[in-house]
Amino acid sequence: MTDLSEQAAQNLAAVRDKKPLIHNITNYVVMNYTANALLAMGASPVMAHAQNEVEDMASFAGALVINIGTLEDDWITSMMKAGKKASELNTPIILDPVGSGATALRTNAAKTIIEETRLSVIRGNASEILSLRHADSKTKGVDSIHSVDEAAQTATVLARELNTALAITGPVDLITDGERVVRVSNGHPLMGYVTGTGCTATTTIGAFLAVDDDPVSATATALAFFGLAGEVAGQKAQAPGSFMIGMLDALYSITPEQLEAGSKIEEN
Amino acid sequence: MTDLSEQAAQNLAAVRDKKPLIHNITNYVVMNYTANALLAMGASPVMAHAQNEVEDMASFAGALVINIGTLEDDWITSMMKAGKKASELNTPIILDPVGSGATALRTNAAKTIIEETRLSVIRGNASEILSLRHADSKTKGVDSIHSVDEAAQTATVLARELNTALAITGPVDLITDGERVVRVSNGHPLMGYVTGTGCTATTTIGAFLAVDDDPVSATATALAFFGLAGEVAGQKAQAPGSFMIGMLDALYSITPEQLEAGSKIEEN
Amino acid sequence: MTDLSEQAAQNLAAVRDKKPLIHNITNYVVMNYTANALLAMGASPVMAHAQNEVEDMASFAGALVINIGTLEDDWITSMMKAGKKASELNTPIILDPVGSGATALRTNAAKTIIEETRLSVIRGNASEILSLRHADSKTKGVDSIHSVDEAAQTATVLARELNTALAITGPVDLITDGERVVRVSNGHPLMGYVTGTGCTATTTIGAFLAVDDDPVSATATALAFFGLAGEVAGQKAQAPGSFMIGMLDALYSITPEQLEAGSKIEEN
Repeated sequence: MTDLSEQAAQNLAAVRDKKPLIHNITNYVVMNYTANALLAMGASPVMAHAQNEVEDMASFAGALVINIGTLEDDWITSMMKAGKKASELNTPIILDPVGSGATALRTNAAKTIIEETRLSVIRGNASEILSLRHADSKTKGVDSIHSVDEAAQTATVLARELNTALAITGPVDLITDGERVVRVSNGHPLMGYVTGTGCTATTTIGAFLAVDDDPVSATATALAFFGLAGEVAGQKAQAPGSFMIGMLDALYSITPEQLEAGSKIEEN
Repeated sequence: MTDLSEQAAQNLAAVRDKKPLIHNITNYVVMNYTANALLAMGASPVMAHAQNEVEDMASFAGALVINIGTLEDDWITSMMKAGKKASELNTPIILDPVGSGATALRTNAAKTIIEETRLSVIRGNASEILSLRHADSKTKGVDSIHSVDEAAQTATVLARELNTALAITGPVDLITDGERVVRVSNGHPLMGYVTGTGCTATTTIGAFLAVDDDPVSATATALAFFGLAGEVAGQKAQAPGSFMIGMLDALYSITPEQLEAGSKIEEN
Repeated sequence: MTDLSEQAAQNLAAVRDKKPLIHNITNYVVMNYTANALLAMGASPVMAHAQNEVEDMASFAGALVINIGTLEDDWITSMMKAGKKASELNTPIILDPVGSGATALRTNAAKTIIEETRLSVIRGNASEILSLRHADSKTKGVDSIHSVDEAAQTATVLARELNTALAITGPVDLITDGERVVRVSNGHPLMGYVTGTGCTATTTIGAFLAVDDDPVSATATALAFFGLAGEVAGQKAQAPGSFMIGMLDALYSITPEQLEAGSKIEEN
């Protein structure tokens, strides 16, 4: 049992106790599922994206989640407004750079958000995260990474360059703020067959950032919780429809004690 | 067994028989769930929001549902166009002022819709409904309401001032048109853990307004039906994922006879 | 056992093996469900609609799905851009003309897309498909069709006029490219109580078009697969909530062998 497993239990209890308002500017595909996930775990979701409203909403929120799926130009403007307001107020912000690296619209939007807001965390898969490197980055591209140690080394340097914690999720999640490196190995293969599990992991981190000031600890504990929900769902469900419903049930039902016992978090 | 319980059974049978088309201009988060709820109960949903289409759609519809979640300016224009067309045609309109009182965009939009369309019903929680008061309202704010009787008194005056029936939903729902006061106590605590249950209650009222000319009766019977669906779902489901699916099943499966027997509607 | 049943098994195996990227420009109501359906069956969904991104996305895709539900003008522009790019690249395109015939916006948009892109298939119900006739069509309207043979005759002529395969879905699906006529009778009555089953049938055809060059064969086999998923779901579920989750489970669980045995495809 590590300190981070105890912290996971404390964070989950705090989310259920404080019911933080999480402001999401997110994509159409996952709005319903992420709102349901936040409610199930005990947080309070709000989805709002209008340019003449996002600063108000961001000012009430315990955390801001920016997700660039189904992106368009007007939404980038809203993301910047909300992000700047949250930055001013020291409200934690997490970015999910969905599809960064695939199209110029996504990559450029993600980079602009990184430059002009004060992010706590960026969560994505390896290719999304590596697409965020500056032209003069000291890190190497995804094709030059041949081992777990090279991945950790790259992530650590990139976190320092981007001045934010990073969460590179996959079968084992890697979290680093440029100093600490934490790995989380909770999860279930059916998570890959449900749309928006990455986006929902991101908003779960958002909820934990609202109750835990340390981005590395908030992120690692949130990913352990979300991955454990997948494990619990996978004990009953054999296929993705039942599994996605089972995950919502598990986000509601897992107790802090079960999370402490079930977390698979390692810090090196 | 009250008259309104019999009316509930008749309304449900009429929805299943006539399959009224319900035109929804609603928020992104709940579009899928509310469409599924309408289909499950036997109505026909259409979601359409384009400024050059909403008048056509509103003219086909048995009721118009306007919901201001995930609002933006273009959508307000569409809501006004659809609302004016429905008003001309005497098609019932129900407004769900999601987040009114939280941001100026929402509060102002709700007030404009109230002024410029002929609403049958507004459904919201207490703070949303009380945010709709005119500056010169004779009612008091939410902090000055200390008892159930004061709440009913306030709602009655406000319904007259706004010239529409009001449904203030919570553990016990209060419905008034400024004269009659009806209370509905169906429901289940897990409804608070599923996103869009309020919005889905609103669209259920929309379906019942399409078959019952009396806004108080349509609203109370719809809320009894929707709350009973929660009770039925809660008999099997222990957590919000299974519960939200169980509610769709119950909206389909509850018979008029079961609704008449299970309705908890009181008129004073 | 027909050749098309064997082809159905081959196509399903190919989707799971190649995991084709299916680019959807689709309506808000069904984005989540169709993405989940594609993932469950083994394909890779992407939803993207921005005018400055759709050409990039379409160029990566194995098929493009254009669905005109919840339409607005900006989206039509994006559909045209994506459709022209896909046409250039010989990427198969399927159109779902949701609501064509109901409003001028939808009918005109569908007709423009048909004229200016190179479609492989259009899938809709009978009234949607018949609304697509040119003013000088040699076919008759829906009110003049009195038999199954007249329907097939009309569809065959219309497919030649529109220069695309057509899939008219209902209790029995009719597929024709103007020469061949194929009928698929898989399906379940509860499919009519779940929103977006038509749209999800369309995106399933998209996935099969990505692995089968023949539009008639890809369409008929996809509809047999999708209908069989309904049959499998209906063996357990008695109501639409459980049924819609059961369909996602079935899209994941049905094997190629089960599809070959369960397909109800007839070619005359």
